[in-house]
Amino acid sequence: MSVTGTLYIVSAPSGAGKTSLVKELLKQDGGIRVSVSHTTRPTRPGEVDGQDYNFVSMTEFDQLIETHSFLEYAEVFTNKYGTSRIWVEEQLAKGTDVILEIDWQGAQQVRKLMPEAVSVFILPPSREELRRRLTGRGQDAEEVIDLRMSQAVSEMVHFDEFDFVVINDQFDKALAELHAIFKAQRLLLTNQRVRQAYLLADLLSE
Amino acid sequence: MSVTGTLYIVSAPSGAGKTSLVKELLKQDGGIRVSVSHTTRPTRPGEVDGQDYNFVSMTEFDQLIETHSFLEYAEVFTNKYGTSRIWVEEQLAKGTDVILEIDWQGAQQVRKLMPEAVSVFILPPSREELRRRLTGRGQDAEEVIDLRMSQAVSEMVHFDEFDFVVINDQFDKALAELHAIFKAQRLLLTNQRVRQAYLLADLLSE
Ligand SMILES: Nc1nc2c(ncn2[C@@H]2O[C@H](COP(=O)(O)OP(=O)(O)OP(=O)(O)O)[C@@H](O)[C@H]2O)c(=O)[nH]1
Ligand SMILES: Nc1nc2c(ncn2[C@@H]2O[C@H](COP(=O)(O)OP(=O)(O)OP(=O)(O)O)[C@@H](O)[C@H]2O)c(=O)[nH]1
Repeated sequence: MSVTGTLYIVSAPSGAGKTSLVKELLKQDGGIRVSVSHTTRPTRPGEVDGQDYNFVSMTEFDQLIETHSFLEYAEVFTNKYGTSRIWVEEQLAKGTDVILEIDWQGAQQVRKLMPEAVSVFILPPSREELRRRLTGRGQDAEEVIDLRMSQAVSEMVHFDEFDFVVINDQFDKALAELHAIFKAQRLLLTNQRVRQAYLLADLLSE
Repeated sequence: MSVTGTLYIVSAPSGAGKTSLVKELLKQDGGIRVSVSHTTRPTRPGEVDGQDYNFVSMTEFDQLIETHSFLEYAEVFTNKYGTSRIWVEEQLAKGTDVILEIDWQGAQQVRKLMPEAVSVFILPPSREELRRRLTGRGQDAEEVIDLRMSQAVSEMVHFDEFDFVVINDQFDKALAELHAIFKAQRLLLTNQRVRQAYLLADLLSE
């Protein structure tokens, strides 16, 4: 029985709090790593290349596509995003659990390649609160917020393609729920057979 | 979409600490109830009729079988044990999650009737510790302990028929793991569709 980590897909509309939840989860749980995507979008203030994203040009991105370097990639609202195939495969082979923070299009591609991947969709607690969170980011015009809202809805309609759904109303509660999903996954028979192989042999010997 | 609770099966060899774990879980989680089985075995000191078990005679038990009152029943080491069908069905219909603390034979029967039931097997952390726990109960002869050990093994070999496996090494850790399984189950898409029906309608309206 070979040791392999579990691949998790975490998706959410912008404003659901996905990134903060995943960051906190990683702090609490040493056995998980998150994949750093490649993107063609401009770096935002405070973002670090190689940490938040690998920031690349359109040409570089297209070369990575041609060399089959991506496990999945997608165009999300005018920019391209992709997941490094080799990094993910290496981590899983080592037995490390990996999180992909990707959109619904990427989730569909990964599910086809790796049906055993566990996917979680994070939702905001209400339309009103989502609007507030999307507005909070700056002093944007009404039409800009409206556009973000309709982009969020176009992501959220795909919630029913995911295994688990977490509502991010209170941060700590949502975090505990996300953590429960990861914990429970490790307790599945198939995973315990590998993790507890010695114990099981000891207990069941006559 | 109708509201229905989830049916959980929790099995373990004697000495794994199943009963204490389930009791503590019920204290922490108000949405779960445990089924009180019928049994033909004698009441032990401290046990309360109708609370730990419904204690009945062999004749009464056989009548309950004939009137199809049991969801499942089995003979476990010379005594008979059975789960009340009506009580379980009523609770699930109300949306309450139900735990059945039953042996592997009962688990097999329930799985056939209700394949959606979620089953958890609890194991002790080692053979040595199991022996200690089985001895701890009294000043029994070596042969009595040996018999209990081989009965425990004959139960444990069925661990691989269960969805989840929890090792009860440190009580609090095992409790947290058991709780994670129950929490995660509620976050499954199928359950969230029902629990969050209003929220989903609000979020996805255009
Ligand atoms: N398919 C795919 N999607 C990705 C990848 N990396 C990021 N995304 C998604 O692209 C979308 C836009 O991400 P960002 O540019 O960081 O913008 P954002 O709206 O601030 O996103 P959040 O930080 O998730 O709120 C989000 O839905 C991400 O989940 C990737 O490698 N593949
Ligand atoms: N099939 C079936 N098994 C049951 C039922 N109720 C209890 N059992 C099982 O019967 C076995 C013997 O239970 P008990 O007589 O309480 O003895 P015990 O060894 O102290 O059991 P624990 O309290 O579980 O450690 C255990 O494996 C129980 O899980 C039932 O309704 N149906």
